[in-house]
Amino acid sequence: MYISDETLEKFIKEDIPYIDLTSCILDIAGQKGKIRFFCREEAVICGTEEVIRIFGKLGVAPVNWLRSGTKVKPNTVLIEGEGAAEQLHMAWKVSLNILEYASGIATRTSRFLEHARAANPDIQVVTTRKGFPGTKELSIKAVVSGGGFPHRLGLSESALIFPQHLTFIGGMDRMLENMREIKIKACENKVVVEVENMEDAIKACKAGADGVQFDKIKSEKLHEAVILLKEIRENILVLAAGGINISNVEAYAKTGIDAIVTSSVYYGKPVDIGTVMENAGPEA
Amino acid sequence: MYISDETLEKFIKEDIPYIDLTSCILDIAGQKGKIRFFCREEAVICGTEEVIRIFGKLGVAPVNWLRSGTKVKPNTVLIEGEGAAEQLHMAWKVSLNILEYASGIATRTSRFLEHARAANPDIQVVTTRKGFPGTKELSIKAVVSGGGFPHRLGLSESALIFPQHLTFIGGMDRMLENMREIKIKACENKVVVEVENMEDAIKACKAGADGVQFDKIKSEKLHEAVILLKEIRENILVLAAGGINISNVEAYAKTGIDAIVTSSVYYGKPVDIGTVMENAGPEA
Amino acid sequence: MYISDETLEKFIKEDIPYIDLTSCILDIAGQKGKIRFFCREEAVICGTEEVIRIFGKLGVAPVNWLRSGTKVKPNTVLIEGEGAAEQLHMAWKVSLNILEYASGIATRTSRFLEHARAANPDIQVVTTRKGFPGTKELSIKAVVSGGGFPHRLGLSESALIFPQHLTFIGGMDRMLENMREIKIKACENKVVVEVENMEDAIKACKAGADGVQFDKIKSEKLHEAVILLKEIRENILVLAAGGINISNVEAYAKTGIDAIVTSSVYYGKPVDIGTVMENAGPEA
Amino acid sequence: MYISDETLEKFIKEDIPYIDLTSCILDIAGQKGKIRFFCREEAVICGTEEVIRIFGKLGVAPVNWLRSGTKVKPNTVLIEGEGAAEQLHMAWKVSLNILEYASGIATRTSRFLEHARAANPDIQVVTTRKGFPGTKELSIKAVVSGGGFPHRLGLSESALIFPQHLTFIGGMDRMLENMREIKIKACENKVVVEVENMEDAIKACKAGADGVQFDKIKSEKLHEAVILLKEIRENILVLAAGGINISNVEAYAKTGIDAIVTSSVYYGKPVDIGTVMENAGPEA
Amino acid sequence: MYISDETLEKFIKEDIPYIDLTSCILDIAGQKGKIRFFCREEAVICGTEEVIRIFGKLGVAPVNWLRSGTKVKPNTVLIEGEGAAEQLHMAWKVSLNILEYASGIATRTSRFLEHARAANPDIQVVTTRKGFPGTKELSIKAVVSGGGFPHRLGLSESALIFPQHLTFIGGMDRMLENMREIKIKACENKVVVEVENMEDAIKACKAGADGVQFDKIKSEKLHEAVILLKEIRENILVLAAGGINISNVEAYAKTGIDAIVTSSVYYGKPVDIGTVMENAGPEA
Amino acid sequence: MYISDETLEKFIKEDIPYIDLTSCILDIAGQKGKIRFFCREEAVICGTEEVIRIFGKLGVAPVNWLRSGTKVKPNTVLIEGEGAAEQLHMAWKVSLNILEYASGIATRTSRFLEHARAANPDIQVVTTRKGFPGTKELSIKAVVSGGGFPHRLGLSESALIFPQHLTFIGGMDRMLENMREIKIKACENKVVVEVENMEDAIKACKAGADGVQFDKIKSEKLHEAVILLKEIRENILVLAAGGINISNVEAYAKTGIDAIVTSSVYYGKPVDIGTVMENAGPEA
Repeated sequence: MYISDETLEKFIKEDIPYIDLTSCILDIAGQKGKIRFFCREEAVICGTEEVIRIFGKLGVAPVNWLRSGTKVKPNTVLIEGEGAAEQLHMAWKVSLNILEYASGIATRTSRFLEHARAANPDIQVVTTRKGFPGTKELSIKAVVSGGGFPHRLGLSESALIFPQHLTFIGGMDRMLENMREIKIKACENKVVVEVENMEDAIKACKAGADGVQFDKIKSEKLHEAVILLKEIRENILVLAAGGINISNVEAYAKTGIDAIVTSSVYYGKPVDIGTVMENAGPEA
Repeated sequence: MYISDETLEKFIKEDIPYIDLTSCILDIAGQKGKIRFFCREEAVICGTEEVIRIFGKLGVAPVNWLRSGTKVKPNTVLIEGEGAAEQLHMAWKVSLNILEYASGIATRTSRFLEHARAANPDIQVVTTRKGFPGTKELSIKAVVSGGGFPHRLGLSESALIFPQHLTFIGGMDRMLENMREIKIKACENKVVVEVENMEDAIKACKAGADGVQFDKIKSEKLHEAVILLKEIRENILVLAAGGINISNVEAYAKTGIDAIVTSSVYYGKPVDIGTVMENAGPEA
Repeated sequence: MYISDETLEKFIKEDIPYIDLTSCILDIAGQKGKIRFFCREEAVICGTEEVIRIFGKLGVAPVNWLRSGTKVKPNTVLIEGEGAAEQLHMAWKVSLNILEYASGIATRTSRFLEHARAANPDIQVVTTRKGFPGTKELSIKAVVSGGGFPHRLGLSESALIFPQHLTFIGGMDRMLENMREIKIKACENKVVVEVENMEDAIKACKAGADGVQFDKIKSEKLHEAVILLKEIRENILVLAAGGINISNVEAYAKTGIDAIVTSSVYYGKPVDIGTVMENAGPEA
Repeated sequence: MYISDETLEKFIKEDIPYIDLTSCILDIAGQKGKIRFFCREEAVICGTEEVIRIFGKLGVAPVNWLRSGTKVKPNTVLIEGEGAAEQLHMAWKVSLNILEYASGIATRTSRFLEHARAANPDIQVVTTRKGFPGTKELSIKAVVSGGGFPHRLGLSESALIFPQHLTFIGGMDRMLENMREIKIKACENKVVVEVENMEDAIKACKAGADGVQFDKIKSEKLHEAVILLKEIRENILVLAAGGINISNVEAYAKTGIDAIVTSSVYYGKPVDIGTVMENAGPEA
Repeated sequence: MYISDETLEKFIKEDIPYIDLTSCILDIAGQKGKIRFFCREEAVICGTEEVIRIFGKLGVAPVNWLRSGTKVKPNTVLIEGEGAAEQLHMAWKVSLNILEYASGIATRTSRFLEHARAANPDIQVVTTRKGFPGTKELSIKAVVSGGGFPHRLGLSESALIFPQHLTFIGGMDRMLENMREIKIKACENKVVVEVENMEDAIKACKAGADGVQFDKIKSEKLHEAVILLKEIRENILVLAAGGINISNVEAYAKTGIDAIVTSSVYYGKPVDIGTVMENAGPEA
Repeated sequence: MYISDETLEKFIKEDIPYIDLTSCILDIAGQKGKIRFFCREEAVICGTEEVIRIFGKLGVAPVNWLRSGTKVKPNTVLIEGEGAAEQLHMAWKVSLNILEYASGIATRTSRFLEHARAANPDIQVVTTRKGFPGTKELSIKAVVSGGGFPHRLGLSESALIFPQHLTFIGGMDRMLENMREIKIKACENKVVVEVENMEDAIKACKAGADGVQFDKIKSEKLHEAVILLKEIRENILVLAAGGINISNVEAYAKTGIDAIVTSSVYYGKPVDIGTVMENAGPEA
């Protein structure tokens, strides 16, 4: 995973478009110091590689750091840097925001996954296209750091047939009649159909869809569906999406589906990370 | 507020880097239709102006729409568009994500403000630099749509002295000795000092700071502080930050402070917005 | 498919960084005219939608135009525009280059596909990651306009195991032992293994790979392989790549594989498109 | 020549927008290795400086490399790098594509030039504005690496009068009447007129044009023209463009023209470059 | 000339990164109005085309406007727009700055040219590479609007040999020995040598340089030089650069040189342009 | 202060879009050398940090350099670099232009400030939003290097009420009636009113405005105004703008105002900086 330089530059410029006014009027230049980010809570961290690059751009030397994907206990130091006082202040909030938001997603993903795997060790947690606009690079890195995978990165690379498609092609039955042709066209992809009930799921499965994605189905219903569908075709992919969160994920995981599709890990409270600065005396 | 074209293009390309594979294999081209976004919950909406611009780029004609900042009841249509089926599908999720996330921030800000104003009609809700990296344009628009203001947009334009600055200039007392010079340098700005206790607040006030920002102080303590500080200087700006959220905001608002500084509105569940597509027959 | 504005701006600025010196010294301003692009050869055209947007940016009004994907006979007008003489000259080469290169790819893809389909009506032609760096948006649009599909858009969205991966994980056999786990992780994707001989293909198929991709295999060998593999598992995806071009594509298509993977359509002679300008008298 | 960072970032992001899914599911992280690109054919290479920068961005250390412009025999190693397995995989195709396409242009230019110089040691090969849109930086670098020069980089810096200009200013004769004024305006540039026959060439020469560019003229005709024109004015620049390629370039070169203007080197088969990866054991 | 959208977006975002705070706190929304830019002094204006595009982005409808290159008397209205009050305020300073700076360059160029042409009607005024970094698009448009031309747009398209080159190739004489080869390589360009005295100029002329550029020579000396050089070769290009400004330009122009090379028009006082806003009542 | 990489890349590409043609035809590659920039006049320099980054991008090693903000005597070396001859030539003008223009602004600001401080040691010099479009990063850095501060960075972060606002809200008196509400909304900012006469200033002061900004007032009048206003409220911020330049700044400074608002330092003659190159022999 490589987060583009343009993205990191944007992160910096959002917080430091021009001068650091406060550092200027206090005249802190000429001092050296350290900056240290520590995690106040249990978390799966993400973003340290990006902070290192931010540090590099701002003239701060990274000292110690943990990789993205590391599980940490409260009060663990995530990354430390050394440099001129005014550079440390420029690096502070942009680094902190990256760490807090990315670790938030990674931690939620990891917890979601833990709950799901507790019920079904083979299940995957995959995330939708519904992240905060403009954050896809960092969000996807965080999902993967937390053990998840992207469900679809966008429209270009996966085949998922929504009811909103059916509107334009004569409905579910009409579409399923063409499933053979659809699968031939998308031979390298799994063709998945979003369904809202068992009947449609069974029809799609029988018509040859590689997978079905249940939207907003109850876990009990889903359990029945999985049994029926896997009987029809053992290797059919069964996904569930819609309203699944950390409180009910185990029930869904137990149904035997292959993956849970969720947007819920993209948003929520950032991880609480503290920042300490230390004076290391005047610059040489 | 003008969200840059580059930002909107990025939003589109995140979701549609190349083709829309599903629409391609289903061959939905040649049909016309409508897309309609409706809000499933009570909310303050934000982002319709951006969706209109996205529609324009993708060849979808906007029909009806509500302005950012509009308060809506559940099941209100936010914006509707007409166009070719494949264009509607391209416009769908990028528009939805903008609306859901921006309206989420606007709605949380608005609720936060309502609670605060219920206790103190003159209070302001202002938001920190701690939004999701890369989202500042949309996040700030959403905050303002919800009735808030940005506290600081970044480092360049406001003067807020943190303990992390004091590390490099000999501590609070030493800094306050220079308050006159600091204020002269930043004569167009209010110079605000972050404090953690009443003693420091009083010292800063007496030294001439334009404002003090309490970090993580209890509301009862804060109440006492406000009384004392306003006695010392009536027009001193008193802010509170740290750990204030919708559940305790009224208590803080009642203390008589001028503004509550919060990051909490930046994150949380997006507003639940549904999408309907309708077939309008073959293209002429 | 939406080609980003940034890309179109880049196309323009490559040819017109500042003034049009020749038009300046000839002082052609003040005249109105028409520009007309016509195809000198049989082709599948691509890029007219982008030319319309370029026209719009440069103040040229598009008059008639054919959609990308249209098959044309020699001497067909692809698109016409009206505007001030100096604007027409600015629009000329940037538009021409888009049309010539994109139509080149579309036409080669279409011919490749025709040859392949003549031998096997269900076969797909899919294109690799090996296009000219920096041209992916236009190249992929052109491939799809010509009837092909992208094989892989990049590293992020498909699972193709190369020998270069096996180097790091103990070789083919070791990897295949873990195929179940690999497939579980990538449950939404087809896991494809690149193989160079029948033995490996069979092993991969038996181990449960969703597909095998033969690299640089002779068509006769491939034919045998397909029979064997489809016997083992009917729905296994069989791809062939490496050295397949328009002269031998039919032989490969006849083998019964699902898709041919090629880079060959990305490069080659642009379609020969002529440009006529007409004087329409002085500007009003 | 400095290829902008934005361009290199775009090259990377085209291939690696987010994660490397295959490396992820195979879990190749934790291994170190080498990557080696070797040229399978005789070629003039181009792009190694850019690959070094790509390597740097992706954490791969370059070991040995040949400069752009180096002529190589088959099986020559062009560049080698060391790094973590997952970084090598990210660097692979983006580097390969740069090398293959840029070396393709450099090699075609070099061969074209060799053929031309065999017939006329003083002749130049210069390339038009008609490269693949979006590739000008890499294409021009490759042309120069192969010994050519850009004919015109765009509209802003050279004066070439096409028939399409004459349409708006009353035709060739009318334009030539103003040649003195035109030359005064463009005094720092050579003013060149595109002509399709000898009569126009002679008229342009007599009128004082610094050069004439023949479009699609036969080499025999051209030979006569050069003699006549150089008699009229010895230092007139004579160029030929249109339909000149490696098979007929010598005939054109022999005519005594100053330079051949070609687009033909911009497109064609990329140089065949192979990639080897080696395992260097677990990371320290 | 097409100024890129990216440049215009940057202009806007420099002034309006997020909200318009003052308009917000005054709550001027809901009113319609007019904005009018008028020139307080005699000037050659530049930038109205860009202001129209800025207006378009910000929802302001342009009403009347004069083209770039128009000479105006004091108190001439340059452009007018209509729109919502808050949009007018967003459009104000970004538009004004474009007009003032671009018109400043255009006006200085025009005056410089007038003075030069008064002494020598055939002389050109051409501008160096030494404009304000980051402003080349607008600066070059302004130069051309004022009647000048770019001398060199950059390093890629013109051949000007400085003493700083000679350092690396053995000095002037050694370089001139190779003039024939140099001219052959750059056959489409005029090869110009920067000289500081008559001796070098004569040597360069005799060696076949297409032109010489005198740096910081007195006008009397230059006059002698031109006579001598034009005797040696009538069509030699003679340029003068260094220390020429509006106060001494006539003396230089009289010397009979072909063009004056200057950086002086790039900087100086912006044209004084006023802004009027009018209330047009509440929005419909 | 961090100038974005995108900005530096733009600076480079403006001057070196593709090859360095002159260096190419002279074939200076293969030589090593030094480049040295020295200031020909007394100045406050700015931009060396950016030149170091430019050097880094172009493969030139910085040797000695002075920080931005350093006051230098004539003939002081600002920065030196070592590298290959062709790299030095690429780095030359882009570096020189940055140094000359940025140092120009820094020097003018410093002189302006010196004159102002001679009359009033506590006065600030602050600069408007009216710099050359597209140069804000470099311009603001230069202002601060010269001892000034930005007055307003743009519309988003400061509250300055112009007559053009009053047009839409019923005039000065009507606005002042709402001053309490306005100040509550913008509680973190100083609310400043632009006034053209003493009456309005007094009204604004009495209504509670945090500051008044006089536009185009004579210094004598201003002096009276300051006395009156500070009597009404001691800590009122008094600014003056419009027509203040280095020749009259002392008179304004003496009036006792807090800061002078100026655009005049943004434009004017760049500092005269010379460039020396030295040959350091053939590359190893």
